Amino acid sequence: MNTLSENLSFGGVQGVYSHASAVNGCDMTFAVFMPPKGNGPVPVLWYLSGLTCSHANVMEKGEYRRVAAELGIAIVCPDTSPRGDDIPDEEDNWQFGCGAGFYLDATCDPFAAHYNMYSYVTEELSRLIADKFDVDMNRQGVFGHSMGGHGALIMALRNPDRFKSCSAFAPIVNPMTADWSSTAFAKYLGDDQAAWRAYDAVALVEDGHRFGEILIDQGDADSFLDAGLRPWLLDEACASTDIDLTVRMQPGYDHSYYFISTFMEDHLRWHGQRL
Amino acid sequence: MNTLSENLSFGGVQGVYSHASAVNGCDMTFAVFMPPKGNGPVPVLWYLSGLTCSHANVMEKGEYRRVAAELGIAIVCPDTSPRGDDIPDEEDNWQFGCGAGFYLDATCDPFAAHYNMYSYVTEELSRLIADKFDVDMNRQGVFGHSMGGHGALIMALRNPDRFKSCSAFAPIVNPMTADWSSTAFAKYLGDDQAAWRAYDAVALVEDGHRFGEILIDQGDADSFLDAGLRPWLLDEACASTDIDLTVRMQPGYDHSYYFISTFMEDHLRWHGQRL
Repeated sequence: MNTLSENLSFGGVQGVYSHASAVNGCDMTFAVFMPPKGNGPVPVLWYLSGLTCSHANVMEKGEYRRVAAELGIAIVCPDTSPRGDDIPDEEDNWQFGCGAGFYLDATCDPFAAHYNMYSYVTEELSRLIADKFDVDMNRQGVFGHSMGGHGALIMALRNPDRFKSCSAFAPIVNPMTADWSSTAFAKYLGDDQAAWRAYDAVALVEDGHRFGEILIDQGDADSFLDAGLRPWLLDEACASTDIDLTVRMQPGYDHSYYFISTFMEDHLRWHGQRL
Repeated sequence: MNTLSENLSFGGVQGVYSHASAVNGCDMTFAVFMPPKGNGPVPVLWYLSGLTCSHANVMEKGEYRRVAAELGIAIVCPDTSPRGDDIPDEEDNWQFGCGAGFYLDATCDPFAAHYNMYSYVTEELSRLIADKFDVDMNRQGVFGHSMGGHGALIMALRNPDRFKSCSAFAPIVNPMTADWSSTAFAKYLGDDQAAWRAYDAVALVEDGHRFGEILIDQGDADSFLDAGLRPWLLDEACASTDIDLTVRMQPGYDHSYYFISTFMEDHLRWHGQRL
């Protein structure tokens, strides 16, 4: 692991690091905020970012450090895809390829050798974080925004024993059926939609996966709400289950980091109470 | 005035606007955060940014909206210089030209027709803000970072009746004698250093200008501390005056927005108590 930068902030350390990823077949960059040193290992909260983002966007605009420092929680922000000259990509398509890994393990060539963000986050990067930072991996939560909200939901639903808490800002809850993600799923996973269900929160719930409590904030002025996000589909899927889903529609808020940063404190305290 | 963007954030509106500036002879862009609507006009706090920055950097990384919304203060963030294809510049020099206006009114050609950030901020943009936003111009404060901390100090010292409060993050207190700014002063203002003193906080204090209270935060791990910033020079200049200057050295903090955002709340509350 290489240290790219470390800056003192709110008494903790905001770091940016890189390492050679075997799972993705490229170097990967990620950010970790470690709260002020206190009494031993701290819980880990994974923040998964949305389309077009890297580790840096939420680190710069998410305004998480003040409350994470107060609560004593480490915040880990992975990149959203493999990157590099050797990585297959569609440069003009912001909904596929670099910046658009959709937190799945691709099975179609030429993507299968690199686009494995599900295993990268849940296994390879997880092992590195456990090894290099003073964290308690028995206390992990996950949250994210948009495509990253999708990632948080599927990781929690598939790993309910590992993650103690889950929340999302404006998540894509049913990427299989949304125009902006279904074409990416076909390229990464092939035409058999049965294989897509492992990476779709609504389908996972339909297929019996469960998670205790989920908090979602969604702006009602979000231009992607009706076509891409549609949190009501998750609400419907959860209705006949014991999943305690809270969807808060926030009047006037859009899809931007101005929305995320406004409700960041609420989400951090939600996770803090459960970690 | 053109509205480039407006986003709801912390119950207020973060806007970005542009207008044709007669003073700078070009279009100028600026940011205004208006707190949630309450009871009438709100005080105005000017944030002046540092070298290489535009209006956008502190808007994205400064983390001011939460407390500004709570206190009911408008935050105005001007650009740091004129910009455009017709603006004389030295593209490879980050300490002069675009991004480096030093909040002065240039007197040397070809800069005098455009580099007039002092008059732009204190007069032209000030009139526009008063005209277009629901603000109380009898309650104004000013703060800033690095070159913008210099700007805040000189504007307060030269206009003590207009500004009720002043603070700075890591300001350049004596730009006349710092390597990284004295060459810019010579190009903007000519070789006669008597003319430079109107734009130098230490010189203004030496020449009899006064301001009631000033708060400065400075990281002791700031790589620019000894060569460019040197807050002790302002401390020495103020020692024999009635200026109540507080310089807080912050252990381990550097020159970045990670430092600014950490102490932003302290500064906003400082201004809030005085506006």
